[in-house]
Amino acid sequence: MDVVVNAATSVDGKLSSRERRQVAISGEADFDRVDALRADSDAVAVGVGTVLADDPSLTVKADDRVADRESRGEPGQPARVVVDSRARTPPDAAVVDDRARTYVLATEDAPGDRRARLTSETTEVVAVPAGDDGRVDLAAALAALEARGVDSVMVEGGGELVFSLFEAGLVDELSVYVGSMVVGGRDAPTLADGDGFTTPDFVDLSLRDVTRVDDGVLLEYDVVDTPEDR
Amino acid sequence: MDVVVNAATSVDGKLSSRERRQVAISGEADFDRVDALRADSDAVAVGVGTVLADDPSLTVKADDRVADRESRGEPGQPARVVVDSRARTPPDAAVVDDRARTYVLATEDAPGDRRARLTSETTEVVAVPAGDDGRVDLAAALAALEARGVDSVMVEGGGELVFSLFEAGLVDELSVYVGSMVVGGRDAPTLADGDGFTTPDFVDLSLRDVTRVDDGVLLEYDVVDTPEDR
Repeated sequence: MDVVVNAATSVDGKLSSRERRQVAISGEADFDRVDALRADSDAVAVGVGTVLADDPSLTVKADDRVADRESRGEPGQPARVVVDSRARTPPDAAVVDDRARTYVLATEDAPGDRRARLTSETTEVVAVPAGDDGRVDLAAALAALEARGVDSVMVEGGGELVFSLFEAGLVDELSVYVGSMVVGGRDAPTLADGDGFTTPDFVDLSLRDVTRVDDGVLLEYDVVDTPEDR
Repeated sequence: MDVVVNAATSVDGKLSSRERRQVAISGEADFDRVDALRADSDAVAVGVGTVLADDPSLTVKADDRVADRESRGEPGQPARVVVDSRARTPPDAAVVDDRARTYVLATEDAPGDRRARLTSETTEVVAVPAGDDGRVDLAAALAALEARGVDSVMVEGGGELVFSLFEAGLVDELSVYVGSMVVGGRDAPTLADGDGFTTPDFVDLSLRDVTRVDDGVLLEYDVVDTPEDR
């Protein structure tokens, strides 16, 4: 399974403001780059916190990219994935509309009524074993996706899911668009939240590319190793 | 007064780990760049949180830079500044040793015994009016430094001081060395903490330069405008 994390942050590492309100960090060129990345992925994933805060659709926007996918014998839209241990995704969320296949990855303990309400012709609630913390075991979650034909996932946030994936040693690449702004806030969500790593056991990256995009800069990294690998 | 903020962060915007333990983010080339920046400044400033966590000396390390300063008729070392509303800097902290002039900027309400203990031949505790939040009014603090011949300050953190300076509209330039690592942690200190700005009133920056340094990248910005200016 190929896992690419892609996100846009302010210079101070924030994904959104302290109010968790979405911030227009990137511009047209970066939106287009993200659209292309989505179109190249089997699935696009977010954590449920991002669904609750932003209600994203996670669909490919450019018609030609949808047509290209179809001409390759793929679904026009990549699958959408919500990592949602307790099945809190609202049934009217954009991510579970009928425009694409969606997998809601919940634990086996998630309430049955919530799972039933989310299930539809295009949305499957996948029961995934829980880890020690009671949340979805991410390695098992990726295996469940692989069993459904998903070999590449682009993860678009939020900071809790991104940290958990790094902590589990499951990320292969990281792309960050750094917008030219300071958002601030000790409680504002950052690219990687969670409990955090402890000194000196951090994730080591290798900086592959640096590109100016719009008014900011795109930083592309390969993951060299993570504390989990050591 | 020219105010330049300079810091090193992980890709996720962290200045240190969740334990507030210093992280080796940058390498030799960036240390040398920072040393040159210090030598070009009248003063180098940090918040008291950074003094308590890291005990930095804030001195210029390269002998030739010290000699250059002296040959220009300046003190060999730039002044050191601690923004320290309640005068909590320990009397044995490296930043108040006798290797350079130091200004501890405290409010008029800071306990007199602490102020007295910090005062020495090289350290002056400057009484600065408090703002509405009971902390040092930063515009008044910079004016007090100007009155002492300091026309340029390089601010090296932490995230609380950096945010407060941006909030007060006092920062002219920002340089961030982004190290190729993920530190993580919703409670780890970031480049700009404080309460944070509210959408959409963020600090707008202009990206002046992007340079690969060591294994990471140096991002240099001019401040275009801040919520305070609007």
